[in-house]
Amino acid sequence: MNNFDYQTPTRLIFGRDVVNRLTEIMKPFGQRILLTYGGGSIKRIGLYDKVKSLLKDFEIYELGGIEPNPKYTQSVVPGVKLCKENKIDVILAVGGGSVLDCSKAIAAGACYDGEPWDVITYKAPTLAALPIVDIITMAATGSEYDAGGVISRPETNDKVGYVDPHLYPAVSFIDPTYTFSVPLKHTLAGVADAMNHIMEQYFSEPSTILNDGFMESGLRSLMVNVKKIIDNPTDYDARAEIFFTCTLGCNGIYSLGSGESGWPLHAMEHALSGYYDITHGEGLAILTPRWMKHVLSEKTMGRFASYGVNVFGIDKTLPQKDIAERAIQATYDFFKEIGIPMTLGEVGIDNSRLQEMAHHVAVNEGLEHAWIPLTEQDILDIYTASL
Amino acid sequence: MNNFDYQTPTRLIFGRDVVNRLTEIMKPFGQRILLTYGGGSIKRIGLYDKVKSLLKDFEIYELGGIEPNPKYTQSVVPGVKLCKENKIDVILAVGGGSVLDCSKAIAAGACYDGEPWDVITYKAPTLAALPIVDIITMAATGSEYDAGGVISRPETNDKVGYVDPHLYPAVSFIDPTYTFSVPLKHTLAGVADAMNHIMEQYFSEPSTILNDGFMESGLRSLMVNVKKIIDNPTDYDARAEIFFTCTLGCNGIYSLGSGESGWPLHAMEHALSGYYDITHGEGLAILTPRWMKHVLSEKTMGRFASYGVNVFGIDKTLPQKDIAERAIQATYDFFKEIGIPMTLGEVGIDNSRLQEMAHHVAVNEGLEHAWIPLTEQDILDIYTASL
Repeated sequence: MNNFDYQTPTRLIFGRDVVNRLTEIMKPFGQRILLTYGGGSIKRIGLYDKVKSLLKDFEIYELGGIEPNPKYTQSVVPGVKLCKENKIDVILAVGGGSVLDCSKAIAAGACYDGEPWDVITYKAPTLAALPIVDIITMAATGSEYDAGGVISRPETNDKVGYVDPHLYPAVSFIDPTYTFSVPLKHTLAGVADAMNHIMEQYFSEPSTILNDGFMESGLRSLMVNVKKIIDNPTDYDARAEIFFTCTLGCNGIYSLGSGESGWPLHAMEHALSGYYDITHGEGLAILTPRWMKHVLSEKTMGRFASYGVNVFGIDKTLPQKDIAERAIQATYDFFKEIGIPMTLGEVGIDNSRLQEMAHHVAVNEGLEHAWIPLTEQDILDIYTASL
Repeated sequence: MNNFDYQTPTRLIFGRDVVNRLTEIMKPFGQRILLTYGGGSIKRIGLYDKVKSLLKDFEIYELGGIEPNPKYTQSVVPGVKLCKENKIDVILAVGGGSVLDCSKAIAAGACYDGEPWDVITYKAPTLAALPIVDIITMAATGSEYDAGGVISRPETNDKVGYVDPHLYPAVSFIDPTYTFSVPLKHTLAGVADAMNHIMEQYFSEPSTILNDGFMESGLRSLMVNVKKIIDNPTDYDARAEIFFTCTLGCNGIYSLGSGESGWPLHAMEHALSGYYDITHGEGLAILTPRWMKHVLSEKTMGRFASYGVNVFGIDKTLPQKDIAERAIQATYDFFKEIGIPMTLGEVGIDNSRLQEMAHHVAVNEGLEHAWIPLTEQDILDIYTASL
């Protein structure tokens, strides 16, 4: 078992109608709130009006229109300006992972005297950030329970992962009913993303009985419950369990003491969605079984066999190689069955830039240190098998 | 899935030699430290000298000799006095759960102007507490990751559970090597206690796939690893996994969104160790299979069958009643096999006060609201079956 240093100070307030407690929860943070949100879905579901009404005795400033893949110049910079000019006490982020990621960068930028880009890119240390409260409306990224975000700056071709302990939300409100109206495509992509967050931690060494069981049940939870949602989008318990399983995805709790995997699937997908702007969760689902097949060997067989037995219920008396191969096929079949496009062709990617992307990943993502190290040729082979 | 409101701000620093970081970690808390510890085992293992040497540049005050089942008059009151007289900035608790529980009460008492007993018994609200850092040396109670403690005041026959969010340790150092020298009897009792913390959360409704898997793997982790320790007390990975599984025991993370069980086994054991001063974990192990047998019914059979299949690997194609009965027998056999005395007679309890204890529990513990409600007669029957 490896050493670890872990702390997640965020308070989770989870369940139906919990947002009714917003007034009481916001009070200790101060009077001046920056309300951040995205393209308007929170208005369609009535959440915007509800929040405004619950906070009628506060002084509210607003930053709406935050984009998916939130942008530095369009959203972070204006947000920081609003905070500084209006002496904001606390940011209230209402929406999905992008709104929250953007709000984290704003919170840090607001407490820094120079250009916010400096802290986002670690040129300057993050010494403080405004407190963040969020009402998270999408089950996927786990941003509501982690200390990170991704900020894009297309002018300079930058897409930066920014992680700092000051960025943990102080409080995250999670009401699964807000996900009832999420379109099926995005529900599926969110589940694929969350499954991948778990797999990126599961496929590593060493591990423990505790972690393995926790992650295997996380995967089963997502797989069983997403099928219920496909049949009935307003199944509360299924939405709730999916949401909470996603919430735990990226803060480390699933794999404390386990080895580092290097997150190879995220590294390889990063190029796909960077070059082609495809949906992140779909890219991950497409790559996953091809990566599994590519790295299957004597060394990894046991791990894939455990995955097959404990996640898919494959007969444990079969030869290990059989179990591992069936588990990889079952992974592909599951994503296909729920309706995720399972080839790069279906999401508009042909073979013209595979080499370029493989080179980019090999140079920038450090996959030579992954659980199973990947060279540029390995990455290209996995992309090619995914066509 | 039930609503929940969850926050554990404690930082866990886990692994071999992590205590070497003590100097750096203590600095932000201030210069004046109250060092608390128990009967001297930390001196025998060299930890006392190590801590003193790491903190040679701080001003250290000491409260040693804290008892198992820490006492209000003997330990809490003198601790509070030391804090107030010496303007202590932070308490450093070094030892097992009792030292830490006592330190939590001292931390709150030090920030209260009146009699500390008032805050411990909720007569006055806990508005603040000194920060607590701990180096926990026993795997069992999970006090290092929860907000509670138990304080005894024999003069008035009081034994009070005191829980408040101000009591979460700020930082817990967990080095599994400190448990290498724990005597086998206490290692086993600690594991039985931790298994019971999980079972008290597992046997309830509703539950989720995620929680069930997490708790089932917690139980398997404890059962598999304790056998390794019996063979080899210095098996680091086994000690480490047991410790971390214990650490998560009482802060709620295993069962977020699950139903309340009412913790019936702890309620019934409380009387046994209160009247006869037996070892808590042994009392729990003795009662557990008898409670299971007593509450087995059509309603509970499914839950016990899941437990049998997923914890003990019992063949899931057997009739549910068979699986449940085998699971209960397997629970008894496991505790017996590792060497825990499995009858009340073996720990010195005869039938003379069973009625009195059953009455005490029925009146004071609210088990009419447990997952499976228990009357005074039910409790007496369970005690009698445990003789």
